[in-house]
Amino acid sequence: MKDMRPIICEVAPRDGFQSIAAPIATDEKIAIILDLIAAGCPRVEIGSFVSPRAVPQMADMAEIAAAVRGTPARLSALVPNVRGAENALAAGIDELVYVFSVSEAHNRNNVRQGVDQSLEGLAQVAAALPGEARLRVAVATAFDCPFEGTVPQAAVIEAVRRVAVLVPGAEIALCDTTGRANPFVVGERFRAAMALPETAANGWAFHGHDTYGQGVANALAAWGAGVCVFDTAAAGLGGCPFAPGATGNTATEDLVFAFNEGGHDTGIDLRALLAVADRIANLPGGVTGGHLRIVPRDRAAFG
Amino acid sequence: MKDMRPIICEVAPRDGFQSIAAPIATDEKIAIILDLIAAGCPRVEIGSFVSPRAVPQMADMAEIAAAVRGTPARLSALVPNVRGAENALAAGIDELVYVFSVSEAHNRNNVRQGVDQSLEGLAQVAAALPGEARLRVAVATAFDCPFEGTVPQAAVIEAVRRVAVLVPGAEIALCDTTGRANPFVVGERFRAAMALPETAANGWAFHGHDTYGQGVANALAAWGAGVCVFDTAAAGLGGCPFAPGATGNTATEDLVFAFNEGGHDTGIDLRALLAVADRIANLPGGVTGGHLRIVPRDRAAFG
Repeated sequence: MKDMRPIICEVAPRDGFQSIAAPIATDEKIAIILDLIAAGCPRVEIGSFVSPRAVPQMADMAEIAAAVRGTPARLSALVPNVRGAENALAAGIDELVYVFSVSEAHNRNNVRQGVDQSLEGLAQVAAALPGEARLRVAVATAFDCPFEGTVPQAAVIEAVRRVAVLVPGAEIALCDTTGRANPFVVGERFRAAMALPETAANGWAFHGHDTYGQGVANALAAWGAGVCVFDTAAAGLGGCPFAPGATGNTATEDLVFAFNEGGHDTGIDLRALLAVADRIANLPGGVTGGHLRIVPRDRAAFG
Repeated sequence: MKDMRPIICEVAPRDGFQSIAAPIATDEKIAIILDLIAAGCPRVEIGSFVSPRAVPQMADMAEIAAAVRGTPARLSALVPNVRGAENALAAGIDELVYVFSVSEAHNRNNVRQGVDQSLEGLAQVAAALPGEARLRVAVATAFDCPFEGTVPQAAVIEAVRRVAVLVPGAEIALCDTTGRANPFVVGERFRAAMALPETAANGWAFHGHDTYGQGVANALAAWGAGVCVFDTAAAGLGGCPFAPGATGNTATEDLVFAFNEGGHDTGIDLRALLAVADRIANLPGGVTGGHLRIVPRDRAAFG
């Protein structure tokens, strides 16, 4: 295995904030993002350039982008189409995340179009990108779909192949959208995707949720397959307020603990991160998860 | 890697029940153990043959043993000394678990003697065993000690070597007593312990807690090192009632999900197990954890 360093991509400001219906003050969002960066998060997905009618929580993206640009972190934003890409680029964000789902049912529910249309949209966004911009493709429901159940591996691999043909240099994130993947299938699907000749130049990321307590194990299975970029959310923000007990993204602090203590430093200061996680956990209307944050007596021990 | 099948050793009746101060009715304990066996748990640690003054919850061990003997599961019980071993054998339990801690401070706190004395006690228990009885040695604080912090790997490996010299055929369990181990150190310590020439004939087990959300990941790291026996507790029972947020043993249902869904069948019926986990979670005074149990909408999907 090559000499790898784990890279955390903090997604609480996007996947987390969008799960909160009550408006969060723009200043609070900016302060949280700056705190995450100060704690050492090397990458932050700061939000979505989507229609404010579709997601009112994301109406202040331009203001947020202006306030956090120029910090040491690599910043990205989700865009659903060419217009979103143009808005993100105009706001100074030059890493764009384009999402579609392998399962038709979830893709139609999430982005209101079929998978073929989504891949056409990907080609359009890629064509509209200036040379210096980066592109990530988030392959949602890459393991399990809330409507269709288990998503067959063949369908995922074929979707990855089509993405790689369209955007050979993009980072491809396999997303466990529901948190129902298990560590064995995560490792297996990454190995199959990475073995495709078409993906030789693509980068890789794993986006996980902790619904069934597999969050850290799934991320480490991806790491074992050679993936070194991991989407997580501080405080595990992102649970659906309408599904009691369902947690959100894998908590950044839980995965950082595994890597930092295990001799693979993420560059993130765990104590500073926990302070931001507390701030996030105090946002009204948020559903949080994670483990490290709720055992406060140990905090002094984290270096 | 050899062809392995994961074996769950259910420890809620021992590590879990002992964490509950209020007396649990003997009939309820027996019913839970029988339900765990009916759900397919291949091994169950049914309790501790200790002084009822030290642990009043374990005063009814003989009655419990009599009621659950002869079921398909392999039953074991913890014994602190030769008297406990004799009582267990007299009750018809022929797999004994002897526990000591690598760290002096925890050993003195837990079993009221030094590590050297504990190893003398191990030799005495081994000598008192009839030939057909099985012995497991639980090496507690094999990663982290609540009093001394990180336990050095060299100390753990030396303790394992001493155990192996005393009882070459015993199963050795490395125990993450506090749940502060990380998956990298778990894999590393098992590989080092298994590489000792003295341990060539020993079996191996991992006993984990989920305090920091590493429970499933730590177990799978042990599995990756070649371990196939895992101690877990249904409903994650075992958290300390005096440490809010601290969860107990890794939840059986979370680890069974990982293995069963990942193509390594444990032989446990997840839906039946979740029903027992609910019963355990309803015990007054218990602190529970785990993830699968609290997302009830998905239960119908578990085969």
